[in-house]
Amino acid sequence: MEESTTTMTTGKPIKCRGAVCRGPGQRLRMEEVMVASPGAFQVRLKIVCSSLCHSDVTFWRMETFPALFPMIFGHEAFGVVESVGEGVEEVSPGDLVVPSFLGNCGDCTECRSERTNLCAIGFNPMGASPAPPQPPSPPPRTAPPSTTSWGLQLRGVHGGGRLPGHPGRPAIPPEKACLLSCGVSTGVGAAWKVAAVEQGSSVAVFGLGAVGLGVVEGARLRGASTIIGIDLNPEKLDIGKKLGLTDFINPKDIGDRPLSEVIVEMTDGGVDYCFECIGLASLVSEAFASSRKTIILGVEMRGEPFSISSAEIMQGKTVTGSVFGGIKAKRDIPILVKQYLDKLRLDEFITHELGFQDINKAFDLLVQGKSIRCIVWMDR
Amino acid sequence: MEESTTTMTTGKPIKCRGAVCRGPGQRLRMEEVMVASPGAFQVRLKIVCSSLCHSDVTFWRMETFPALFPMIFGHEAFGVVESVGEGVEEVSPGDLVVPSFLGNCGDCTECRSERTNLCAIGFNPMGASPAPPQPPSPPPRTAPPSTTSWGLQLRGVHGGGRLPGHPGRPAIPPEKACLLSCGVSTGVGAAWKVAAVEQGSSVAVFGLGAVGLGVVEGARLRGASTIIGIDLNPEKLDIGKKLGLTDFINPKDIGDRPLSEVIVEMTDGGVDYCFECIGLASLVSEAFASSRKTIILGVEMRGEPFSISSAEIMQGKTVTGSVFGGIKAKRDIPILVKQYLDKLRLDEFITHELGFQDINKAFDLLVQGKSIRCIVWMDR
Repeated sequence: MEESTTTMTTGKPIKCRGAVCRGPGQRLRMEEVMVASPGAFQVRLKIVCSSLCHSDVTFWRMETFPALFPMIFGHEAFGVVESVGEGVEEVSPGDLVVPSFLGNCGDCTECRSERTNLCAIGFNPMGASPAPPQPPSPPPRTAPPSTTSWGLQLRGVHGGGRLPGHPGRPAIPPEKACLLSCGVSTGVGAAWKVAAVEQGSSVAVFGLGAVGLGVVEGARLRGASTIIGIDLNPEKLDIGKKLGLTDFINPKDIGDRPLSEVIVEMTDGGVDYCFECIGLASLVSEAFASSRKTIILGVEMRGEPFSISSAEIMQGKTVTGSVFGGIKAKRDIPILVKQYLDKLRLDEFITHELGFQDINKAFDLLVQGKSIRCIVWMDR
Repeated sequence: MEESTTTMTTGKPIKCRGAVCRGPGQRLRMEEVMVASPGAFQVRLKIVCSSLCHSDVTFWRMETFPALFPMIFGHEAFGVVESVGEGVEEVSPGDLVVPSFLGNCGDCTECRSERTNLCAIGFNPMGASPAPPQPPSPPPRTAPPSTTSWGLQLRGVHGGGRLPGHPGRPAIPPEKACLLSCGVSTGVGAAWKVAAVEQGSSVAVFGLGAVGLGVVEGARLRGASTIIGIDLNPEKLDIGKKLGLTDFINPKDIGDRPLSEVIVEMTDGGVDYCFECIGLASLVSEAFASSRKTIILGVEMRGEPFSISSAEIMQGKTVTGSVFGGIKAKRDIPILVKQYLDKLRLDEFITHELGFQDINKAFDLLVQGKSIRCIVWMDR
C-alpha cells in the first residue's frame, strides 16, 4: 500500500492505494483502501518498497483456509513508521523498519532462549484480522509492527526489526533492506543459526530460489568449501556462482539415478549439511540419504509426513526443521544489515524492479521462475 | 573367557574356559576354547569381569545374520592386556582397558572431526572373524583391542579405551569400569555429547534400562531440572530416583491417552529433549510430539522407518540418531572414569553380581527385567 495523503495523519484513518486480490489466483487490482490508525501495540508503516516472496504466491493460489480474501500481499518489505498505537515503546514515527511474519517480543521464555526463535507472539501467515481492530488479548509484550485495514487481510506481518539510519539516509538501501524481511534471511539464517555450518564443510542445497540462494550465501560466509546447488532451472547456476556455489546438479541431467547417489559419489560419502528448500517429502528422504544433517526449510506442499530410515539415523544423522532460519527479527536483522555493509551479498538476489502499478507482472515473473526477487517500489 | 594358564603365554595360543552359545536362544555351556595369539593390530585381553548388555540378549536370540554361532558374549567388559600383535603401539601388556564395539583410531577423518564418532574402522556387532586370524586388510591404523579364537565368534569388540592405574590398583574398580564399555556410556554420552543438555532444561527418557538410566544420570550431571522417566516396570522408579529422575510415568497408568499428551501437559508444552531408548518407530513419533529435540538410541526392532510430521518439524524440532552416545572410546572413556571419581554415579547400575559359572542366570535376570547390570566375575 502506498500512503496517498500528505497531511498530518497520526490518529486518523488513512486512505491508500492498495493492490487487492479478491479471490484465489485472481489478478490484483488497485483499489482505494482505508487503513485504521494503529490500535494498542500496533504500528502503522509507510511501505517504501517490497519484494514478492514465494509464500505470497502460495497464498495467492490457496483456495481454502488459512487463505482469506480479499487479501493484500507484500509482507517482505521495508518501511518507515508512520504512527504507533498505545503501549508501543520500541519504535517511533520516522524509524526505519523491516516487518517480519514472526514475533520477537524479547521477553517471553522462547525469546530469552537460544534454543528457539518461536516467540510466544507467534507466527502469523495472514497478518492483521479484519477491522475494526481490537486490542490484542492478552496484549503482546512489545510492538508488533503491523498495519490494519477494514475488511482486508494483510498477509503475514507480525513483528519486525528496526534498522540504523533515518528516512532520508538509511544505512542500507531500501531494496536491499526488504530482502532481509523474509526469504533471504531464512536461507542465510539456516546456514548461520540452524546448521551453524563450519569452516571447510560441505553443503548441498535443494532448490535455488531466494531461500536456497540465501543458504548458499550463508554457507559461503561460514566458510563452507563445497556448496552444491540442485535445481531444475539451469539459469540458477549463474546467480548461484556469484554467491559461492561450487557445483551444480540439474536433476534432469542425471537420468534415473537418485539424487542422493550422485551427491554421495561427488563428495566421497555425502555432504555435512543438506538444506531442503522445496518442500516435498520425497526430497527430504533424498536429502537425508545425501548428508549427515538435513535442514528442512521448505514447507511440505501437501502436508505429507517424512519417512526416515531407522537404520541410517542411528549413524549419527540429524533432521531439523526451522521457521525463518532461526532468525529473531529484532536481534538478528540489524546484525544482517551490518553484515551487508561488510560482506553479505544481497545485490545478486534482485533480478527485477517494477513500479507499484506493475505488481501483477512481479507475480508473473516469480511464477515463471524468471525472477529471484522483484522489487516493487511504492512511489514509482 | 577366563585364562586358564599361568605360564608365559605371549606368542602362544591360550587354552581358556569360554561360555559358548551354540545356537539361537540356547543355554551357554562352559567349553575349553583356544585363543590364538594376537595377529597384526590385534590385542589379547585377560577379561577380569563383564556385565551383560541387552544387545547380547538380542544377538543370543537372533536366528539369522548378523548372528553367527557358535558365539561368545561379554563385549561390555574390563580387562588387562595380556599380549599385543604386530603394529600395536598404543597399549602394552599389563595395561587396563575397556573394550568397545566401535573403533576410535584417532587418525581418520571421522576421528578428527567433532561431528561424528563413527571411526573409519567401523562398528562391529560380531567382533573377530573365525580364526586362524588374518592380518586385517587394509590394516587399521591403530590397535583394536580384540581377541580371537578358532571357530568362535566373539561378539562386538573392536576398539577400546586405556584406563589409569595398574592391574593391582586400578583407579576405578573393575565392576564399575566395565559399565563404561557400552550401555551406560551410551546413555551418559547421549545427554553429554549428542544432546548437550543444558542447565535447567527438561528431559524425558523412554525406557529405563542401562542406556535410559545412563541418560538420566547424564542429564543430572548436565544440570537438567526436570527428568521424566517412562517405563512399564514400576521397579525402575527407585533406581531412577537415585540417579536424578524427578518424575515417572508408567504407560499402564495413563489409559488410552497418548504418552506425548501426558508429557506435554506435565511440562506445559513439552520437554526440551526426549531420548527414545527402546527402539520402536511408534515411540519415536510419541517422542517427537513430546519434545523439541528427539534423540534416538534404541535400534528399531523391526527395521521400520520413522514417520515425522512435516508441519511439526518446521517449528524448529530436531530428530537425531547416534551410536554409542557419540562417545569416542579412547578419548572419552578416560574422561568418564575421571567423572566417576568425582561425580558420575555408577554403583546404582549394578543390581547383581555372579561368578562365571552362573552366566546363564545373568541372562535370565536381564530377560526377566530384574537386573539393570549383572556383573559376571571371571575368577569367582
